[in-house]
Amino acid sequence: MSESALAIRAAELDAADELGKIREQFVLDETVYLDGNSLGALPAAVPAHVADVVAREWGELRIRSWTESGWWEAPERIGDLIAPLVGAAAGQIVVGDSTSVNVFKAVVGAVRLAGEGRDEILVDEGTFPTDGYIATSAARLTGCTVRPVPLDSLAAAVGPRTAAVLINHVDYRSGRLHDLPGLTAAVQAAGALVVWDLCHSAGALPVGLDAHGVDLAVGCTYKFLNGGPGSPAYLYVAARHQAAFDSPLPGWNSHVEPFGMRPEFMPVDGARRGRVGTPDILSMAALEAALGVWDGVPVEAVRAKSLALTDFFLECVAAYVPEGRVSVLTPLDHDARGSQVALRCEDASDVMAALIARGVVGDFRAPDVLRFGFTPLYLGFADVERAARVLAEVL
Amino acid sequence: MSESALAIRAAELDAADELGKIREQFVLDETVYLDGNSLGALPAAVPAHVADVVAREWGELRIRSWTESGWWEAPERIGDLIAPLVGAAAGQIVVGDSTSVNVFKAVVGAVRLAGEGRDEILVDEGTFPTDGYIATSAARLTGCTVRPVPLDSLAAAVGPRTAAVLINHVDYRSGRLHDLPGLTAAVQAAGALVVWDLCHSAGALPVGLDAHGVDLAVGCTYKFLNGGPGSPAYLYVAARHQAAFDSPLPGWNSHVEPFGMRPEFMPVDGARRGRVGTPDILSMAALEAALGVWDGVPVEAVRAKSLALTDFFLECVAAYVPEGRVSVLTPLDHDARGSQVALRCEDASDVMAALIARGVVGDFRAPDVLRFGFTPLYLGFADVERAARVLAEVL
Repeated sequence: MSESALAIRAAELDAADELGKIREQFVLDETVYLDGNSLGALPAAVPAHVADVVAREWGELRIRSWTESGWWEAPERIGDLIAPLVGAAAGQIVVGDSTSVNVFKAVVGAVRLAGEGRDEILVDEGTFPTDGYIATSAARLTGCTVRPVPLDSLAAAVGPRTAAVLINHVDYRSGRLHDLPGLTAAVQAAGALVVWDLCHSAGALPVGLDAHGVDLAVGCTYKFLNGGPGSPAYLYVAARHQAAFDSPLPGWNSHVEPFGMRPEFMPVDGARRGRVGTPDILSMAALEAALGVWDGVPVEAVRAKSLALTDFFLECVAAYVPEGRVSVLTPLDHDARGSQVALRCEDASDVMAALIARGVVGDFRAPDVLRFGFTPLYLGFADVERAARVLAEVL
Repeated sequence: MSESALAIRAAELDAADELGKIREQFVLDETVYLDGNSLGALPAAVPAHVADVVAREWGELRIRSWTESGWWEAPERIGDLIAPLVGAAAGQIVVGDSTSVNVFKAVVGAVRLAGEGRDEILVDEGTFPTDGYIATSAARLTGCTVRPVPLDSLAAAVGPRTAAVLINHVDYRSGRLHDLPGLTAAVQAAGALVVWDLCHSAGALPVGLDAHGVDLAVGCTYKFLNGGPGSPAYLYVAARHQAAFDSPLPGWNSHVEPFGMRPEFMPVDGARRGRVGTPDILSMAALEAALGVWDGVPVEAVRAKSLALTDFFLECVAAYVPEGRVSVLTPLDHDARGSQVALRCEDASDVMAALIARGVVGDFRAPDVLRFGFTPLYLGFADVERAARVLAEVL
């Protein structure tokens, strides 16, 4: 299809887009921002809410805000806002700490839940590096070994010695979406527990944690959930595991009576057991306001638009970019595609710099990957067509 | 001395106070805020800085701010702002995560630095509970045992099996200041490492980490450093230990090449080795702005005023409060006093509620302690006199 035909198609698709109006709830400019899978754009409700938390809740009420402004319960309250986005019933998610710290809690917790006689942790071979580093540390501290395995052969690799398997739902590099229901079942059939890292999927597609019987999960909140730079991550512990969940970071916030100041640790029940220290209120406040954009937005509609956007981007790239100049790393099969498109390109680093200079912001992943993230809440089809057009110009 | 005489003394002391003008750099009201040892008051520079980070750095520059707005280096940069306040040369402090998480890094790190054959962790008997919980978890994961010891007999308790000793610099309940130089020397004489928790001392008195050869230290930033609710904590690793410091939380941020996305972990040198995951930028921004109030303020002057404030408070309490109604838990000896006064009082919970209702905010610690924190940067002597007067009225 020609350039003008694709531009017309884009306009038609935007006109028919039921999620199109949500874009108004974000602070955007003329840039085509395809890096929402790294740092989500600013939701318009955030600045005023953060300003109020700083000036009134901290500045005026001070210490009283721990009770009067709901600071103390923020980790569980915000966890319950994230829950429906990842298919979890309330009471299973707690927000706080970084993703890495939550991977540590989840992997050590999973090893302990798996019980005696299981001393092996499997991680997906293409894991985001920090997951592998932290899993290795968890293994060292719990007397386990770590083994990276290709996910294609996970069912064969998992066995009677496997305690836990840590898997990224969407591969950060290629954008490949892994089979959460099938891999969960395979891990559990071997008597092990699965820990899913949802960093690159939550907020872009349905996860179905409860429906698929996932054991534990972690995720960040600054990508498709738009919580802001370094906003706190979250931990999901399935209700059936909570009573036995034994955190390696039992801070005073997970004590049954945090202000009792007792010398012995006695863990609280429920999601709160995943808490550690004092919650980071300013970042939580930004995240809480950011999650407001999801009011009444079904994740299924977001997924449908995400696939339409990435399909359309691939179509435009195929139409505009000289053949052979880039190759598509992201699976074409919808069932295996996250909400990003990765293109392999020899001079990817230079190309991305040129794209950014022309107002199309994606990111570069060494050594040769152009990575474009598609956030359905604030991206339109015209943005996508323009991105492909500018990419073709640069190339 | 009579009430009016003490009020006149207060006015004279305020007039002569060289730190008196710093109060203008805080957002205050008619309340006498004696809870800065729990949550510091809002520095006036914070709201505008946080608003700029949200609206411009996040909202406009988005992902570019990781490099262009200095987000990536924030943990070390802010660590270097804290360093002079605790007597550390630059390059040894990194900001991030909660105090509890940093206690975990420090205690496991200390056990590993102590080397083979040492399998015991000592904690001070009156420790803030979370330190004890986390030390117990660190012990369990490293094959050690934990033993609480009274600090008076620490020198006798520490021995050839001791790997690490975790001590609170100021007791959170009584306000007792522990002998950092002496205890550090005693621990090191036995070949063990010391980890100091500075939560209740940093920003109120000189700590002298380098001068006294401390091994590792942690602290929060929301008390006397006024960083805001749940602002990130910090970790100090003495320069001589950094090359061998082996963190139990080796996240991608402590990798020598964080964006190399290498499967093997290779730790970076220096303070950055204490980092874990993505830093929490909004909270860091508030903290960085808050630390501006320390420009040109020597900690020694703050300490002198702190002692003068607590002396004067004790004098006013003695003059105003009916004898026998409260007893003083905080040491009268300056060398053993932090920047708080704890009064034991049978009906402490009710008394504190009545005080707060009358605009004097301290806090209650179960079962019978009235706790008053004195932040020399924004408290004056007239505040102190008024607090004692209102306390006497309530009693």
